Amino acid sequence: MSTPPSTPPSSPLSSTPRTTVGRLRERARTDRDDLYAVLDAGLVCHLGLVRDGTPVVIPTGYGRLGDTLYVHGSSGARWLREGPVCATVTHLDGVVHARSVFHFSMNYRSAVVLGEARLVTAEPERTDGLRAIVEHLAPGSWGYARVPNRKEMAATTVLALDLAEASVKVRTGPPSDDAEDITDEVWAGVVPVHTAHGAPQPDRHVPVNAPLPPHLRPS
Amino acid sequence: MSTPPSTPPSSPLSSTPRTTVGRLRERARTDRDDLYAVLDAGLVCHLGLVRDGTPVVIPTGYGRLGDTLYVHGSSGARWLREGPVCATVTHLDGVVHARSVFHFSMNYRSAVVLGEARLVTAEPERTDGLRAIVEHLAPGSWGYARVPNRKEMAATTVLALDLAEASVKVRTGPPSDDAEDITDEVWAGVVPVHTAHGAPQPDRHVPVNAPLPPHLRPS
Repeated sequence: MSTPPSTPPSSPLSSTPRTTVGRLRERARTDRDDLYAVLDAGLVCHLGLVRDGTPVVIPTGYGRLGDTLYVHGSSGARWLREGPVCATVTHLDGVVHARSVFHFSMNYRSAVVLGEARLVTAEPERTDGLRAIVEHLAPGSWGYARVPNRKEMAATTVLALDLAEASVKVRTGPPSDDAEDITDEVWAGVVPVHTAHGAPQPDRHVPVNAPLPPHLRPS
Repeated sequence: MSTPPSTPPSSPLSSTPRTTVGRLRERARTDRDDLYAVLDAGLVCHLGLVRDGTPVVIPTGYGRLGDTLYVHGSSGARWLREGPVCATVTHLDGVVHARSVFHFSMNYRSAVVLGEARLVTAEPERTDGLRAIVEHLAPGSWGYARVPNRKEMAATTVLALDLAEASVKVRTGPPSDDAEDITDEVWAGVVPVHTAHGAPQPDRHVPVNAPLPPHLRPS
């Protein structure tokens, strides 16, 4: 459930200098709904931060409530700190085979969000953020599995990132070959790439023939 | 063709303080072959860099030759500069459903490489790096499509990153529930996630019924 009950009216994405797409501007999307679509379709974001002057990029789950992205982790994790971060979500949709090596490409959707990570300490935002993360990863699970107890909450750090400054890029379609390279002899096109979920695999404690819970059944 | 003809003997990964896995050490892999396996299985890396003191994470293709990772882009791209970078490759293998929200997790394989990006200006490394990138994305294509001409080479920047300082983390298997949460009433297990390639889609210039080139036929 990545979409909150009352989504604010869609507004354009920011275009500060650092989130204005510099090259291949035809790939840039400027509607906030495009940002939501890319974020909501992903499970892993790559979170960049600066540690001792060098960049570090960590893959992590996330959730979204309105215009806030949430990530979480162990309170002991050294990367869960306030400060400037960049959260990037990428979907690879296809490998673009052109007639020339130069025009090989990928079809993709990506979102890059820049901002200051904020430590979430107050309720109800802390629980709401955690719920958004779990429901994004495994919809229907927050109301099914045991919710966190006091000790587990204490062991968990939640960070928030405002979706104020972001850019979205999308490439679709066939290769962009130079006209003089197009001949009947050379194949070009797109090899689609997609992500699929397999059948749920119960662990060894689940009784044989136990039914899947409703939220895991094919819809 | 990500593996060069003569792969050097496998050596342990570095474990500098910044690439020593801090938490969940049971997920850390320390063999260099584990690094190669994660890198060779991916198509997109998330490259982190620091711009004006803030982190930026950009998705991009890559290739590997021995212990060097190559990325490329337009000579005009502002992110293709020498300096400290972090290249992270992540594969999501499954969503781990536990009996408690706290133990929800993901099965994944990830590699984090830290280092200084080096501008590749000399031949044959420049062409070799580009070939590695294209062959990683679309094996068999470098010998099939037209190779870059002088103008295209001039428009392309290639960066190299040594695989000297890296960490690899892998999570597999069922949820790690607390014993007291295990009951017959709650389902837990793994929903596998995998990436699949669809049937190649020719663009509109390819003659109807033209056969696929050998490197694109199912093996």
